[in-house]
Amino acid sequence: MNGAHALLETLRANHVTACFANPGTSEMHFVAGLDDVPEVRAILCLFEGVATGAADGFARVSATPAATLLHLGPGLANGWANLHNARRARSPVLNIVGDHATYHGRFDAALQSDIEAVASALEGWYRRTLRAEDLAVDVADALSAAYGPPGRVATLVLPADVSWSEVPTVPPTWPVAVRPRLSQPHDDELERALEVLRRGRSALLVGGGALDAAQLELAGRVAAATSSKLIVETFPAIIDRGAGRVEPERLIYLSEFAIAQLADLEALVLVGAKVPVGFFAYPDVASQLVGSGCAVVDLAPPGTDTRAALAHLVDALRAGPIVHDAPSLVEAPTGELNVRSMAAAVGATMPEGVLVSDESNTSVVHLWGATASSPPHRWMTLTGGAIGMGLPLAVGAAVASGGRVLALESDGSMMYTPQALWTMAREGLDVTILGLSNRSYAILNLERQRVGATSDGAVSQRMLDLDSPALDLHALAASLGVPSVRVTTADELVAALRRSYATPGPMFIEVMLPKGLS
Amino acid sequence: MNGAHALLETLRANHVTACFANPGTSEMHFVAGLDDVPEVRAILCLFEGVATGAADGFARVSATPAATLLHLGPGLANGWANLHNARRARSPVLNIVGDHATYHGRFDAALQSDIEAVASALEGWYRRTLRAEDLAVDVADALSAAYGPPGRVATLVLPADVSWSEVPTVPPTWPVAVRPRLSQPHDDELERALEVLRRGRSALLVGGGALDAAQLELAGRVAAATSSKLIVETFPAIIDRGAGRVEPERLIYLSEFAIAQLADLEALVLVGAKVPVGFFAYPDVASQLVGSGCAVVDLAPPGTDTRAALAHLVDALRAGPIVHDAPSLVEAPTGELNVRSMAAAVGATMPEGVLVSDESNTSVVHLWGATASSPPHRWMTLTGGAIGMGLPLAVGAAVASGGRVLALESDGSMMYTPQALWTMAREGLDVTILGLSNRSYAILNLERQRVGATSDGAVSQRMLDLDSPALDLHALAASLGVPSVRVTTADELVAALRRSYATPGPMFIEVMLPKGLS
Repeated sequence: MNGAHALLETLRANHVTACFANPGTSEMHFVAGLDDVPEVRAILCLFEGVATGAADGFARVSATPAATLLHLGPGLANGWANLHNARRARSPVLNIVGDHATYHGRFDAALQSDIEAVASALEGWYRRTLRAEDLAVDVADALSAAYGPPGRVATLVLPADVSWSEVPTVPPTWPVAVRPRLSQPHDDELERALEVLRRGRSALLVGGGALDAAQLELAGRVAAATSSKLIVETFPAIIDRGAGRVEPERLIYLSEFAIAQLADLEALVLVGAKVPVGFFAYPDVASQLVGSGCAVVDLAPPGTDTRAALAHLVDALRAGPIVHDAPSLVEAPTGELNVRSMAAAVGATMPEGVLVSDESNTSVVHLWGATASSPPHRWMTLTGGAIGMGLPLAVGAAVASGGRVLALESDGSMMYTPQALWTMAREGLDVTILGLSNRSYAILNLERQRVGATSDGAVSQRMLDLDSPALDLHALAASLGVPSVRVTTADELVAALRRSYATPGPMFIEVMLPKGLS
Repeated sequence: MNGAHALLETLRANHVTACFANPGTSEMHFVAGLDDVPEVRAILCLFEGVATGAADGFARVSATPAATLLHLGPGLANGWANLHNARRARSPVLNIVGDHATYHGRFDAALQSDIEAVASALEGWYRRTLRAEDLAVDVADALSAAYGPPGRVATLVLPADVSWSEVPTVPPTWPVAVRPRLSQPHDDELERALEVLRRGRSALLVGGGALDAAQLELAGRVAAATSSKLIVETFPAIIDRGAGRVEPERLIYLSEFAIAQLADLEALVLVGAKVPVGFFAYPDVASQLVGSGCAVVDLAPPGTDTRAALAHLVDALRAGPIVHDAPSLVEAPTGELNVRSMAAAVGATMPEGVLVSDESNTSVVHLWGATASSPPHRWMTLTGGAIGMGLPLAVGAAVASGGRVLALESDGSMMYTPQALWTMAREGLDVTILGLSNRSYAILNLERQRVGATSDGAVSQRMLDLDSPALDLHALAASLGVPSVRVTTADELVAALRRSYATPGPMFIEVMLPKGLS
């Protein structure tokens, strides 16, 4: 048995069931080994950013790591942006990065580069295996690191000769990752949290791993019992939403509005969330969004058992159950297609249990509102701000769940990783993609006002426009094998969504919105 | 005047005429400033790998740096693979990477990351500017570093507040980069080179900056006068070729054949090239391609004046002029379309002065041969092995030259950076793209045999196939705004090439080749 095969056996023993791969020459022994380990589903991606974003989506949905298979430094670099998003989502991910044979590195061949430097910026776990007999243990160590808690990106470099060398002794059992327990919240912090919550003018800010329906229910009971606000971080990795679920208000993206949102608070209790800060800095706007007079209690830093913390608060407060309002159904829109009617169409048609991969950027406010009382669903957002996440994340979510995914994708963002569409077609994934065409980097038209970088010039305006030439998104999707349609009215959109949900496999719907911010 | 404007003024003063940009919020002041500095042509790219590959192409053609404009760590990472190729091509490139405001970094906002670590793996020059008043000097320093010699990738990090802050005093003149001189070859090495060349069984291996027509002519005279072989490195950054020019034999990509190619040599004289090593390691094949009995004379390491070295050899040898054969014209093929007839069509139709961006991978042997006596042209190759270079490089070459570019692009490689097609359409660049469709990672089918990673399994074979679903390359190009056609016979290809060369703007030609290696 060679090293690559031992690696795959270790993945199987650790129940790693998916490998999102963009292999090259150095990874050919790994690829050959896939034939013998069918439990590790190999999914080909045409670009590494698809593979890494898919691994992130897989992890968010299943809370277990998928593997990526990448080709030397350039492969890792191509996947880096979505690994950055995965890091911010605290997703467990295992990168396997093929490299030159150990003895070949010193010759500085064309593809040689400092992989460790690129990996180090992911602030996760890194190791280079030097002998085939060490691979199994190294993989288990990598998976232990990936699981955390909190989850992180683990990168294992696999030199070609380590792949092709024989493992001298095949162990009787393959090593298995250790999954350390969540730590318990501190009594002092629990007491402080109770104290400030009881005093009033306080809020619970939930985030991270505290956003499943059961924990949100607990958080909602705490908020109701103490008349506190319940707020969710701006960009949750994954959150349960919809009819019958507690819906926190969302921390606003725009710093100046977020500062106003938090201005009245005397205390903020963090449960899995970080102290809120501005996404960007703006001239004359504070970076820290909470006022200096607001006490911050960090009840559950990363790796803490948020459920235990919330349950403790519920018990201490004897917080009663929540009576959920009957869902107010969104009516299917007709007529003109704009951001509002688009959002209403999504809200009115959403099936139960759908996974939403949201990279809708400037459209999100309407979409978030229109789906609040749709059937129960889960929503994933752009955690790290590195655009090009939405379609790859949808791939991974579909593979992990086997269920329907709805990708809400802005035209500008979609153009970073359109290759994901091909993998959806190839694997027959049940993904409905809304390609939101407004022919501009609408968010930058907004942001340049906010930073005060206004100019009347045609050159700078043209840098934010995507309409010359127009991107034909539905033709693009079709060229990559995804059935595709363009809609220009709300009625057509509603019909297309319903058809897509009733049809196995991916479908791309190009949604023609008014140009720019709308 | 704010920092961003000062930066742009410094670019203007240094004759940096192109900026390949994929901006975000942090770069909005730079974008606004573009309206006031029209000499810096801003070219929007939908993905950062397009911007960086274009800067590489610009540099290879013009020997001067273009700027890129990238958005924080993820932007640099997305552009990293083509910067790796630029590093291997020794292309001067100036990256401007927008970042959070200096005071915002400590808050660890979503997009915060260790940009320096990612940049460090490019082994070039790096600086973060902290005050607007330092920007002009930092840009000039960056450009000095980029020029070298040898050329390198310089990365300047531009915090948002440095962009938007006022420069206290506008200098009377903007600082200008220093361009250090090439160093002269050493007399000892010149003597050694003459000695081994005169002794026989030797070769000149030319590469780097020694590949323009005039230097190749000198090298050809040296080789003829000493009955030496004249060999060019496997992946030249840019080389003058075609009728009336000295055509060295090319060092073979496959290690085992390259070893045979060099086996008889007693001496190898390097002129701008490195000691040849295997592109990858293979079991039981040496990494170093020259035998241990072969003396190596490095006449012109990076930064050395290769022209002076060659001229010295010509003088010392009293090497006479070369009589070039009349070019043997390639006849336009008819009938079946395969790799041979495709190559013949390219050779038969090539106009004079075309710039070739070659990412044809397994098709290159035929293409290289079929164009040897085509009208004079320049040929660029995949210097760093990071695929996804061909289309971006063509963008930059077209912007730098204003002339016709021919991009030879394999289907698998094309899918890394297809976004480049949109920029070609937007800017009206005269690029003819051959999309070589063989529906497979043909090179990996070859490589897996060579590394001994064979398997009969369907899973591993499917990881190398691109035909399920088929990529509709010409529809993809059309969706991005490029006029496009699919050809299935040699006659159609010849006609399409001729039409493209006669028509301003880009044209995409999907070339339907037999599946796999052919």
